[in-house]
Amino acid sequence: MSKRKPPKEPPAASVTVADRGEFGFIEALRLSLPPAYGALKLGVGDDAAWWRPEAGNGILTTADMLVDGVHFDLSYTSAADLGYKALAVNLSDLAAMGAKPDCVYLSLGLPADLKIKWLDEFIKAFLDLAAEYDVQLAGGDTVAARELVISVSVNGLAPGPAPLLRSGAGVGDDLYISGTIGDSFLGFKLLQGSLPPEAADSDAVAWLKARHLRPRARVALGERLAASGRVSAMLDVSDGVVADLGHILRASGGLGARIESRRLPFSPAARQFLDTGRIALVDLLTGGEDYELLFSAAPAGRRKISEVAALAGVSLTRIGRITEPGTVLMLDNETRLDKLSGRGGYDHFHN
Amino acid sequence: MSKRKPPKEPPAASVTVADRGEFGFIEALRLSLPPAYGALKLGVGDDAAWWRPEAGNGILTTADMLVDGVHFDLSYTSAADLGYKALAVNLSDLAAMGAKPDCVYLSLGLPADLKIKWLDEFIKAFLDLAAEYDVQLAGGDTVAARELVISVSVNGLAPGPAPLLRSGAGVGDDLYISGTIGDSFLGFKLLQGSLPPEAADSDAVAWLKARHLRPRARVALGERLAASGRVSAMLDVSDGVVADLGHILRASGGLGARIESRRLPFSPAARQFLDTGRIALVDLLTGGEDYELLFSAAPAGRRKISEVAALAGVSLTRIGRITEPGTVLMLDNETRLDKLSGRGGYDHFHN
Repeated sequence: MSKRKPPKEPPAASVTVADRGEFGFIEALRLSLPPAYGALKLGVGDDAAWWRPEAGNGILTTADMLVDGVHFDLSYTSAADLGYKALAVNLSDLAAMGAKPDCVYLSLGLPADLKIKWLDEFIKAFLDLAAEYDVQLAGGDTVAARELVISVSVNGLAPGPAPLLRSGAGVGDDLYISGTIGDSFLGFKLLQGSLPPEAADSDAVAWLKARHLRPRARVALGERLAASGRVSAMLDVSDGVVADLGHILRASGGLGARIESRRLPFSPAARQFLDTGRIALVDLLTGGEDYELLFSAAPAGRRKISEVAALAGVSLTRIGRITEPGTVLMLDNETRLDKLSGRGGYDHFHN
Repeated sequence: MSKRKPPKEPPAASVTVADRGEFGFIEALRLSLPPAYGALKLGVGDDAAWWRPEAGNGILTTADMLVDGVHFDLSYTSAADLGYKALAVNLSDLAAMGAKPDCVYLSLGLPADLKIKWLDEFIKAFLDLAAEYDVQLAGGDTVAARELVISVSVNGLAPGPAPLLRSGAGVGDDLYISGTIGDSFLGFKLLQGSLPPEAADSDAVAWLKARHLRPRARVALGERLAASGRVSAMLDVSDGVVADLGHILRASGGLGARIESRRLPFSPAARQFLDTGRIALVDLLTGGEDYELLFSAAPAGRRKISEVAALAGVSLTRIGRITEPGTVLMLDNETRLDKLSGRGGYDHFHN
């Protein structure tokens, strides 16, 4: 998938982080690392690392850093919203591996003038969500910083016999997504004030905002999908369906995919905005922060997948299928998703 | 131990992080948490968390966040120094539990104008040190930030049958420290330019600076001490000997201690500065960032402890002993260490 890049790169010694971009740096780092060995079964490159130091299925570890003004905007994000989301996005990474979250480490960089009241509300929402998933705060760090920085790591238990990776998709597999797509992107635009809310009723607007501020991590669904034995590859959608599908296709050896646009699951609230024509379908496929599970499964597993959806109480929609390498990833309306320049995933240094 | 505090606190709703202080916030958070249960054997409050989700001794997890201008000064800290130290301080936390480090998670908040060359040097030093300890980089996150923020978490293997906590000291136990005290503080002052280097020879000055920039984590020593079965309580000295001894005494139920100043181990380089009179002995006991191991052990273990020191190739010095609760912590020159107002540990919000 193409990535936005500045037209030319300056001389080597003066190339900056912004010139290279977030994905460029991580990809270069990943390629420079030796393959995982010993107790480390899976290192950099998936939603979580898989480490099996003792007898058993091993543990999965996520790490996420959130920075004020980059990942959140305190003008419309409450302390409680942020406390909730800082944990939820990590739980979502574990859900994407089929893992059961167990304990969390929270490190905070705090500006000196931050109100303790704000911090108390942040912590309360963080711990309330943790308690809901039976997750304990086990450690972390608290330091002074000029800007608010939140670094969260969650340890979870791997499903037996192995976690669900991004890399197992095969040609002919069905492609599924949980829940609905694009709500978080619309919520974000509404919160930002860059999308007029008049096109939708006030309940829909409030619901979309909540989808952005308080994403549900699909933990129970992820565990059930792992237990089904039917899923070949899975991740959670954080960069947008297009970019994250690209991650599965690349990790699975450079496969293609075909998505049927008429099958894409949109919420009634999102449909109100699609109907106005101010929002394009492709915006909802590239917006990101859906925190829904995107996965592939051979067609023989369809009945089992339906059962899982019913038991987990989350809708699962078959949106297309995995195709041969080289096959162009496209909608049935012939849009080449892999040619959406500059929309192939969110880069914090360029957006 | 007393802590510096502003004279009065403003009305509840406007109390800031700076008013409360780093230790105040963490202590309040710790007290608000329920006791660890289930697989989590030890949560917030020691050098690392202890989690035992499967058969075996369980794993230990550290978390540290470093912020530009708070924890390091790029005017005298090279990219390689910082890459080294960011990992070393976490390895030291695991050493303090007697654990064997195994894999590391690195999250970076990067300013857009940071040079890729700088970042490459940072990563190289980080990975070189990791390789030295057979530690693998397993995951992390990379995001944009206005200031450089480094968040590191290391997973290690607990020594059997249990890690060495801060809380096991008993009355009559000997007190030991590894290596020498105060070198890092002197190195810091020399790097800062607030201590004239003329009092010492240039080799001594360079060595002290290196002790600050590149602290050795006492990993092998920590493992051997844990295996000896003789250590009752241990931590690594990051806040200064006085403050960290206070942590052991409080965690062990409010005990006292007596330190014999003539026994304190100072390096020849540090002695050059002590001899000038510009640096007081107590400065070296409160400076912090020694990353030496401070521990207690019953006198019956003296021979075994000596053997460990010899095998690990690190000097261990018996500097005093644990005394009854209420006993005043003092030097043999009658200084009450617990009355050193405002020196009882480094608070990033107030220093």
